[in-house]
Amino acid sequence: MAPRIVEIRKNVLKKNDLLARELRARFAGAGVLVVNLVSSPGAGKTLMLERTLRALGERGERAAVLVGDLETDNDARRLGATGAPVRQIETHGVCHLDARMVADRLDGWDLGAFDYLFIENVGNLVCPAAYDLGEQVRVALLSVTEGEDKPVKYPVMFQSADLALVTKIDLADACEFDRAAAYGNLRAVRADLRVIETSAKRAGGIDEWVVYLATKKGSVCV
Amino acid sequence: MAPRIVEIRKNVLKKNDLLARELRARFAGAGVLVVNLVSSPGAGKTLMLERTLRALGERGERAAVLVGDLETDNDARRLGATGAPVRQIETHGVCHLDARMVADRLDGWDLGAFDYLFIENVGNLVCPAAYDLGEQVRVALLSVTEGEDKPVKYPVMFQSADLALVTKIDLADACEFDRAAAYGNLRAVRADLRVIETSAKRAGGIDEWVVYLATKKGSVCV
Repeated sequence: MAPRIVEIRKNVLKKNDLLARELRARFAGAGVLVVNLVSSPGAGKTLMLERTLRALGERGERAAVLVGDLETDNDARRLGATGAPVRQIETHGVCHLDARMVADRLDGWDLGAFDYLFIENVGNLVCPAAYDLGEQVRVALLSVTEGEDKPVKYPVMFQSADLALVTKIDLADACEFDRAAAYGNLRAVRADLRVIETSAKRAGGIDEWVVYLATKKGSVCV
Repeated sequence: MAPRIVEIRKNVLKKNDLLARELRARFAGAGVLVVNLVSSPGAGKTLMLERTLRALGERGERAAVLVGDLETDNDARRLGATGAPVRQIETHGVCHLDARMVADRLDGWDLGAFDYLFIENVGNLVCPAAYDLGEQVRVALLSVTEGEDKPVKYPVMFQSADLALVTKIDLADACEFDRAAAYGNLRAVRADLRVIETSAKRAGGIDEWVVYLATKKGSVCV
């Protein structure tokens, strides 16, 4: 890339970081834990969120969702069916969410009324890694169907994550998923990365994930 | 995005298009069919290419590969084991290939010695859509594990493709793949899009795909 473009990109990211910092303070002040979910397209973010919203609802926790997509409000409609407040961000071709898009979609929401705010990012293992959304927890999903090598091929995403959710574990046998190789690759890019295996279809791992969220909420929010 | 950034992006894309046009003329002059493979991470581009290289080799066709990844040369090593000439492009964080990266990696190759040149793009359903690499054929892979809605959520990628390869069809039952919904969504973004179903693991659809390539080669190259 030419130096001028690099400079513009740095300015964009710096501006984003400043706004993300403001958002993070606002979220902490409201006592809401904000979780940014990132992954490839089709790794199972939406189904995982459906299960999570229902599990949190059963525990009397209040959760809301901002869901990002290039086009369509399919996911917002799916997630809205759980009864949780859900808003869609259509990026119209932009390959990631940024802090400005998030800030703009918070209007009129009383953040203090939520225990959790989930942000489902655009399905993309590259670009969302560079954009801080003011979240307290970043979760990278890796489905067993994608191949065990993804962490080393897309290292920034997994390096910047607080947790890896290995999804669709019910398909592990059908895909001949090599667990040891996948964990080796996750740990190669981030030695201390916490990993939880899940199956949203078979409700596997949801309890462990919800406990993880509760722990994070306890330790991060004021 | 601010107007200045939009302007820079337009200039980048215009410069890319000019170089891609030069590349396309060069490829046509050499009589090589160039195929750009795009998809989500883990949709099966590399395994599909392994099968394709072997199938073409058995037919006495000569094929080479440029393979793009953010990091690692894993795929080049996998594909090189077929005996085909393979070169890796490591983008080091850039989320797509561009015409300059392709042009720079052709040095010293006699393109006239190849019948086919495959370019395996970075796994990303968004950004590679905007970058013409001078290819004559763009192929978008959609794995049955990703969900049937991906074409409508990432429409530009499928609108700009000449062919959709539905991959991992052997997992269709395990994933409860809804074929009618997937085809409906593919046709919703591009009514005349040709679709071939494949299973690289079970060698399904490879013959149909190789015939498609041969037809394209016959109709496009000089």
